[in-house]
Amino acid sequence: MTFLEIIEKKKKQGTLTKEEIQFWIENMCHGNLPDYQVSALLMAIVLNGMNMDETFYLTEAMIQSGEVVDLSSIEGIKVDKHSTGGVGDKVTLILAPLLASFGLKIAKMSGRGLGHTGGTIDKLESIPGYRVEMTKEEFLNQIKEVGVSIISQSGNLVPADKKLYALRDVTATVDSIPLIASSIMSKKIASGADFIFLDVKVGNGALMPTLEQAEKLAHTMIELGNRFGKKTVCILTNMNEPLGRAIGNALEVKESIDTLQGMGPEDVTSLVIQIASLIVKDTEKISKEEAERQCFKKINTGVAYAKFEEMVNRQGGDLKKLEISHRIFSVRTPKEGYITKVDALALGEIARKIGAGRLTKEDKIHYQVGLVLSHKVGDYVKVNDELVKVYLDDLDVRVNDILECFTIESEEPKPEPLIYETIS
Amino acid sequence: MTFLEIIEKKKKQGTLTKEEIQFWIENMCHGNLPDYQVSALLMAIVLNGMNMDETFYLTEAMIQSGEVVDLSSIEGIKVDKHSTGGVGDKVTLILAPLLASFGLKIAKMSGRGLGHTGGTIDKLESIPGYRVEMTKEEFLNQIKEVGVSIISQSGNLVPADKKLYALRDVTATVDSIPLIASSIMSKKIASGADFIFLDVKVGNGALMPTLEQAEKLAHTMIELGNRFGKKTVCILTNMNEPLGRAIGNALEVKESIDTLQGMGPEDVTSLVIQIASLIVKDTEKISKEEAERQCFKKINTGVAYAKFEEMVNRQGGDLKKLEISHRIFSVRTPKEGYITKVDALALGEIARKIGAGRLTKEDKIHYQVGLVLSHKVGDYVKVNDELVKVYLDDLDVRVNDILECFTIESEEPKPEPLIYETIS
Repeated sequence: MTFLEIIEKKKKQGTLTKEEIQFWIENMCHGNLPDYQVSALLMAIVLNGMNMDETFYLTEAMIQSGEVVDLSSIEGIKVDKHSTGGVGDKVTLILAPLLASFGLKIAKMSGRGLGHTGGTIDKLESIPGYRVEMTKEEFLNQIKEVGVSIISQSGNLVPADKKLYALRDVTATVDSIPLIASSIMSKKIASGADFIFLDVKVGNGALMPTLEQAEKLAHTMIELGNRFGKKTVCILTNMNEPLGRAIGNALEVKESIDTLQGMGPEDVTSLVIQIASLIVKDTEKISKEEAERQCFKKINTGVAYAKFEEMVNRQGGDLKKLEISHRIFSVRTPKEGYITKVDALALGEIARKIGAGRLTKEDKIHYQVGLVLSHKVGDYVKVNDELVKVYLDDLDVRVNDILECFTIESEEPKPEPLIYETIS
Repeated sequence: MTFLEIIEKKKKQGTLTKEEIQFWIENMCHGNLPDYQVSALLMAIVLNGMNMDETFYLTEAMIQSGEVVDLSSIEGIKVDKHSTGGVGDKVTLILAPLLASFGLKIAKMSGRGLGHTGGTIDKLESIPGYRVEMTKEEFLNQIKEVGVSIISQSGNLVPADKKLYALRDVTATVDSIPLIASSIMSKKIASGADFIFLDVKVGNGALMPTLEQAEKLAHTMIELGNRFGKKTVCILTNMNEPLGRAIGNALEVKESIDTLQGMGPEDVTSLVIQIASLIVKDTEKISKEEAERQCFKKINTGVAYAKFEEMVNRQGGDLKKLEISHRIFSVRTPKEGYITKVDALALGEIARKIGAGRLTKEDKIHYQVGLVLSHKVGDYVKVNDELVKVYLDDLDVRVNDILECFTIESEEPKPEPLIYETIS
């Protein structure tokens, strides 16, 4: 078997065998395959696809490329959650302690972000003192004792994915459902949870531009999860405007705290409760309505927030020291009317430019900067009403760039659903 | 414009503009594009194709990547010929002097071979003293005075093709009609001839496995030739068995001499006469039949061979010193019947293994070794009849490997055409 034969086969719409896919991933990880051969295969996969078996073998080979986390010493149901990523998506920060307050075990390993804003790990690092690196023992002990821990993904978890993703990113081979599904699911399965909850963002600024594509991805990931013996649930959610109001690391932590205390934006609260209740109804064997009621109760009685505080403290973080930039200015609308569109991707890009995100791994994040939307889609605004509060550090932004993210029209927009559907 | 956007566009079945294709080729030649990006684009082109305009722009950009030969100082019609390559294909060695004996000017730059046997240049180098490297002035003067010269292709002729081909070879992106057509035609057009004759081999061991694919390639190359103002004619020929009887460098030179002296194998003679008469009927404005008659006359009167000798002598070669290996053995058939198939590719591979060809650029060719077929498809053989004479040097061969190249059956095979069609 040579790698050239494998490329040739996929180019001719052949179906790769388990052995061929293992040969690819193993040799790639051992540095035996030149990048130009791997990228040729990736393009052939993007254009000719992979069937469910091939996708499963790829996921399996990727898992085997590194360490697999063993959570079997932890009692209870181990839950993991993943979002395909969106502007203002702070759901993990709220959901993880909320679920832990039900006695579920959340062993969450998360990545850093490239692009608009930081990833979950970057957001947590905006809390002074919060340690994102822990030994395996510390991590397991905290989950046993506190019920939840969010740490930085180990460098040795699915190293094949790191290599592949770096190459896909620079060869226009990102948009392939089998490649996306195996990338996400290999990390989830290697992370060891029993119950995997996936939030697939749909829309303008999201990985999946159409509902049809998102459904396909969801079905592929659920089938992969099931083949590995994991309960897997997928929710397809709207990503046409930013989630919540805050974009930027410390600002999003603050909005998460607000939400955990029952004072969060409507869309964030609603999405967290929906996801949590979909999990809790299954693990607690109760109705969806009862699950929702109990979720609200965990928030309204302060139990969920207490769990968040416990997790942060245990990992060395000091919430009292959380800082937001004091250099604030308001962007006001020159136009009256209904906000019909808010360009999530463009706002995310502005947040990145003022320091909330990074373009290269070397860029340093400014934790205290960001944007907070004063209005969202559907709101009616008058001339000079505030649209956005911008929290700046040393980097500046053009007001016009922000104004261009908002479409204001005379007709009220038709409300869009926050959640399109749940698939399991 | 970024190269990533160009890959993305072709991936999505877009049509690349002249500017995009120039950006690709120029930046690739200046070392600004990583191989892994170029190979991703190549795979997207193989799978999504290129239209005629894109293929023309690619050919043009490739020509512009290097030197263009100016033959305008030479009077008369400058003819170039190219074959897509086959086992035992020595047509250029015979055709070039034959055409020159009509007063046509043959300025032929040829490549070395990778694979079964050497290329035309390797074959000529088996003649002791033959110089394949000449200055531009020497080359032009020889064409003016002798009418024909065959030299090694300049390193600066279409450097973009060298880079692209090296990458295509190792990324399973060879089999694309636009890529093949632009590779061949860029070199032909940069070589400066007025009349381009293309021999597209069809069959088992050939670049084009089916007649349909070969026709498509032919039409693309003719259209490219016409767009550059060159008279272009294509012949599609059978490559299901080796051409002629000799495979190996000095052995093929010897068979070429035999053919130029009217004693060559029937298929080689017939193919050379067909090609020559297709060119001569056009340049001399005579009928095909009259052209054929005149070609035979050039051979039978010794004029064509004299031209070959003149070319070889002028380039320093000494035909009296041409040597064939003296370590010969016969492979005999254990079976009686009709030869119904001779596996050209497998015999070529055997020739390479005993030293007639090279696998890497560094391999040294053994000029004196090779195979000579005693029988061809359609012949009836009795047990112990000789199938092949093997000319060996220091490398050995297994008799069984050779026997496996011959299929012998009781039924007489249906004769196959040597020439499928001519397209212009």
